[in-house]
Amino acid sequence: MGKVRVAGFAVSLDGFGAGPDQSLEQPLGLRGPELHNWFYPTRTFRTMIGQPGGTEGVDDDFARRSMEGFGAFILGRNMFGPVRGDWPDESWKGWWGDDPPYHAPTFILTRHARAPIVMEGGTTFHFVTDGIEAALAQARAAAGDLDVKIGGGVSTVRQYLEAGAIDELHLVMSPVLLGRGEALFAGIDLPGLGYRVTEMVPSDSATHVVLAR
Amino acid sequence: MGKVRVAGFAVSLDGFGAGPDQSLEQPLGLRGPELHNWFYPTRTFRTMIGQPGGTEGVDDDFARRSMEGFGAFILGRNMFGPVRGDWPDESWKGWWGDDPPYHAPTFILTRHARAPIVMEGGTTFHFVTDGIEAALAQARAAAGDLDVKIGGGVSTVRQYLEAGAIDELHLVMSPVLLGRGEALFAGIDLPGLGYRVTEMVPSDSATHVVLAR
Repeated sequence: MGKVRVAGFAVSLDGFGAGPDQSLEQPLGLRGPELHNWFYPTRTFRTMIGQPGGTEGVDDDFARRSMEGFGAFILGRNMFGPVRGDWPDESWKGWWGDDPPYHAPTFILTRHARAPIVMEGGTTFHFVTDGIEAALAQARAAAGDLDVKIGGGVSTVRQYLEAGAIDELHLVMSPVLLGRGEALFAGIDLPGLGYRVTEMVPSDSATHVVLAR
Repeated sequence: MGKVRVAGFAVSLDGFGAGPDQSLEQPLGLRGPELHNWFYPTRTFRTMIGQPGGTEGVDDDFARRSMEGFGAFILGRNMFGPVRGDWPDESWKGWWGDDPPYHAPTFILTRHARAPIVMEGGTTFHFVTDGIEAALAQARAAAGDLDVKIGGGVSTVRQYLEAGAIDELHLVMSPVLLGRGEALFAGIDLPGLGYRVTEMVPSDSATHVVLAR
């Protein structure tokens, strides 16, 4: 059985994994995009958006690692879209266009049932209404020997951390202060849950840290 | 007039500037000493404790910078010692022996009056009972054109941050998880107070970050 991992998850110096006031126009919250300044220049990201070129090196290595080896993904509903409450219709299909970057079964946590959506490139969105444990069981079954990625957002990562379900986290400590937003670790005792720092690799734009247990 | 600075202040990945359960035996709290693993091997620290040798490079450069250019220091009472409430006698003179590493007037925030203590090497401990603003005014007067260092601990740094009194902070992001302890920034909106990241320099053992406004 594969591992359950968080990867490529950026955190501000003051501990926020997303900015405040998320919306259709600001899916990462105010100033949230600055968390990912390490990622945009990489070859991995540019390939993802169909552009040539991009940087190689530490950031690109971690960017590639953060999307490799996964047989299924789990996303919180707010990471899937800005819609709250019941789905008004079937029109919202994620932020990522017709060919999302997952290329595997992707399970969306929600309280509001919806039929699966088959996208291009191997991504199918499944909507799970019976909780994080059920979603993880389905994702594990879909992933087989590959890993399951907890894609985010902050609330979803926190729930799986508190449930003791995550084997490894790759965090990107970005040199930015957000001031407000969603705090990733507030109130969570990581060493108490068995985590320790197993890797720390700086780049010019961030510090990559791996936590495992 | 000099600046008011925090320097060489280590923070865990989960945001703690000291461990929990501080005591005479554990002045930095449980596992708090691990925050400072970047510092102990440096030539600057070894010189401070009268030992030869030590590392040079990024960590030593920042260690030296963190003690240079200051004409006065401000410390919270818990950083000065484990005594709480009234001073039982005059015996406690800090954690640092006869020749503390300050070599300048050092103002201790406390509600309990006490006569100044003249130590060896230029350090005099002054006990200030009328608040952080009064302590800063006295420290500025003592420092002249030199800078004032807010030495810590966490509570003292937070009080001066919230008062808008700090010009610059050098933080050392240490690759350690504490889980519990004193959170440095929780509830403080640093960009709202005008701070931004002006410097980020990795070493093998930590990431040095400078915040200024």
